[in-house]
Amino acid sequence: MLVICFYNPMVVAFVLIMSKTGQEKEVLANIRRLNEVKEASIVFGDYDIIAKVDVSNVENLNDLLLSKIRKIPGVSMTTTLIGI
Amino acid sequence: MLVICFYNPMVVAFVLIMSKTGQEKEVLANIRRLNEVKEASIVFGDYDIIAKVDVSNVENLNDLLLSKIRKIPGVSMTTTLIGI
Amino acid sequence: MLVICFYNPMVVAFVLIMSKTGQEKEVLANIRRLNEVKEASIVFGDYDIIAKVDVSNVENLNDLLLSKIRKIPGVSMTTTLIGI
Amino acid sequence: MLVICFYNPMVVAFVLIMSKTGQEKEVLANIRRLNEVKEASIVFGDYDIIAKVDVSNVENLNDLLLSKIRKIPGVSMTTTLIGI
Amino acid sequence: MLVICFYNPMVVAFVLIMSKTGQEKEVLANIRRLNEVKEASIVFGDYDIIAKVDVSNVENLNDLLLSKIRKIPGVSMTTTLIGI
Amino acid sequence: MLVICFYNPMVVAFVLIMSKTGQEKEVLANIRRLNEVKEASIVFGDYDIIAKVDVSNVENLNDLLLSKIRKIPGVSMTTTLIGI
Amino acid sequence: MLVICFYNPMVVAFVLIMSKTGQEKEVLANIRRLNEVKEASIVFGDYDIIAKVDVSNVENLNDLLLSKIRKIPGVSMTTTLIGI
Amino acid sequence: MLVICFYNPMVVAFVLIMSKTGQEKEVLANIRRLNEVKEASIVFGDYDIIAKVDVSNVENLNDLLLSKIRKIPGVSMTTTLIGI
Repeated sequence: MLVICFYNPMVVAFVLIMSKTGQEKEVLANIRRLNEVKEASIVFGDYDIIAKVDVSNVENLNDLLLSKIRKIPGVSMTTTLIGI
Repeated sequence: MLVICFYNPMVVAFVLIMSKTGQEKEVLANIRRLNEVKEASIVFGDYDIIAKVDVSNVENLNDLLLSKIRKIPGVSMTTTLIGI
Repeated sequence: MLVICFYNPMVVAFVLIMSKTGQEKEVLANIRRLNEVKEASIVFGDYDIIAKVDVSNVENLNDLLLSKIRKIPGVSMTTTLIGI
Repeated sequence: MLVICFYNPMVVAFVLIMSKTGQEKEVLANIRRLNEVKEASIVFGDYDIIAKVDVSNVENLNDLLLSKIRKIPGVSMTTTLIGI
Repeated sequence: MLVICFYNPMVVAFVLIMSKTGQEKEVLANIRRLNEVKEASIVFGDYDIIAKVDVSNVENLNDLLLSKIRKIPGVSMTTTLIGI
Repeated sequence: MLVICFYNPMVVAFVLIMSKTGQEKEVLANIRRLNEVKEASIVFGDYDIIAKVDVSNVENLNDLLLSKIRKIPGVSMTTTLIGI
Repeated sequence: MLVICFYNPMVVAFVLIMSKTGQEKEVLANIRRLNEVKEASIVFGDYDIIAKVDVSNVENLNDLLLSKIRKIPGVSMTTTLIGI
Repeated sequence: MLVICFYNPMVVAFVLIMSKTGQEKEVLANIRRLNEVKEASIVFGDYDIIAKVDVSNVENLNDLLLSKIRKIPGVSMTTTLIGI
């Protein structure tokens, strides 16, 4: 049996999140419930929350952002730094 | 018959779009329906969608932005990079 | 049983480039020589040049940026929008 | 009669305005009705409208911004560049 | 009696605040009522208000931001510069 | 039959310029010497100088930027807002 | 009749400074030596140093910036928030 | 009576680093050698490298930045997001 499988190594990304003012703690709680999120915390600076995520490839990262993170009430903007 | 016609060559521009969170796919679908849009895709980074557009001159680019792209529900901000 | 599974979606990205002032045309010429660059042009706005690139995966995108684009004399800053 | 009057020379400023999407033309029309506004136009780029204003001093510039420009429906953000 | 007490020296921070347009004066008045705020003023530029705050440690700074400043109606965004 | 159709709307643009620190006055003087520059002044804020320029079309605007403004010693970055 | 009218409100401004990496402490020391600087500190965030300055009018603020602060070795960029 | 009160919560911060073009790999290698750095990687987006650091308090974070990270050749700018 010959199995040749080209696959994309895991993708690690840091999602910088702006939250609507006054909803930071709820947004953080919802973010932490997501399996792909390995850690998340509120931060001082231009963004309000940073979340480190682990996904299998860039398409799944897109799904995580569009179907989960950016659907959380209170998330107003996200910027994603894809790690290498 | 003497015809002198000074005209402006085609204008290519890249429109960087921020979408309201949770509405990215609808915004992308509406953007792609516009004739002037040659290609558009969701992106990771500071912006959510990038669209390459082709118009005949700067005035038409303005119309495309004000009367079409920025009227699409879910478009919250645009930045236009006019190509040379 | 022969199982060949290619899991290798192409990655399209738009690289926004800031050039040292006065070196834009040389930077653009060098960018256009790269095979992975499908199109590139000088733009008005926050960035000086935009380049659309096609690579096989995120690692190759990283190589293209670190070993080629960011090694071109006159490139002072890059921001990459990875398309989906 | 001795009149000594120290006064502040005119202040020229450029107000960069972000408009809610779809309301640019109304915002521009309202901006142009203000006496202090010497010229205003829609622009491509990070901002949507630029207005050049002339006021007698920094306090009046503040009034113009807080009591007039930022009260116009559709104005979502302003950045002021005070000229010298 | 032996008392060993490691403690964190006071934290001074400058909070840069974006206000919803038209609500700047109310936001400033509410900000100034907070004990931790030593001074605050409306400013020209990318931000609308700057507030200098004094707190005992980074956790209290976080509480001040999340439970007080960002709960004030009209505050749309904050960026915090922690001083050393 | 003589048909002369000029399709050559003037392009007005505002060029926001960052100057190397300590060279602002020289940069401003050089900017003001350019015919296309209708007015220019030093400003407070994210940028150091703003210049209003008048050119016949987008190609000439590009030439003005690449061959003149960005060749002036001390100009470190430019952002162009094209007016409509 | 003797009319003396002083119209000379003090101008308070916050200068946000980016320092060349590795020169922050020298820049801070030089900034603090200026009479117009009431306080200055190193900060975490987008900028490296914040300085609160007091000057008699906008012209003197400009002199302070161009002739003193931006001439200090190691200062690479400044953004000024003029207070009201 | 022996009272020992340690008030010394650890500070976690994410340092976003811009590297001079062409020096990313050397900068990353030097960053990873620092004990306080728990993880670091090259990223796509506005910044080039992200480093997660663990220090005992805000003063030590400042030392880490000024005396170590920002002294590394090739580091051109840093923005620090202090976690809570």
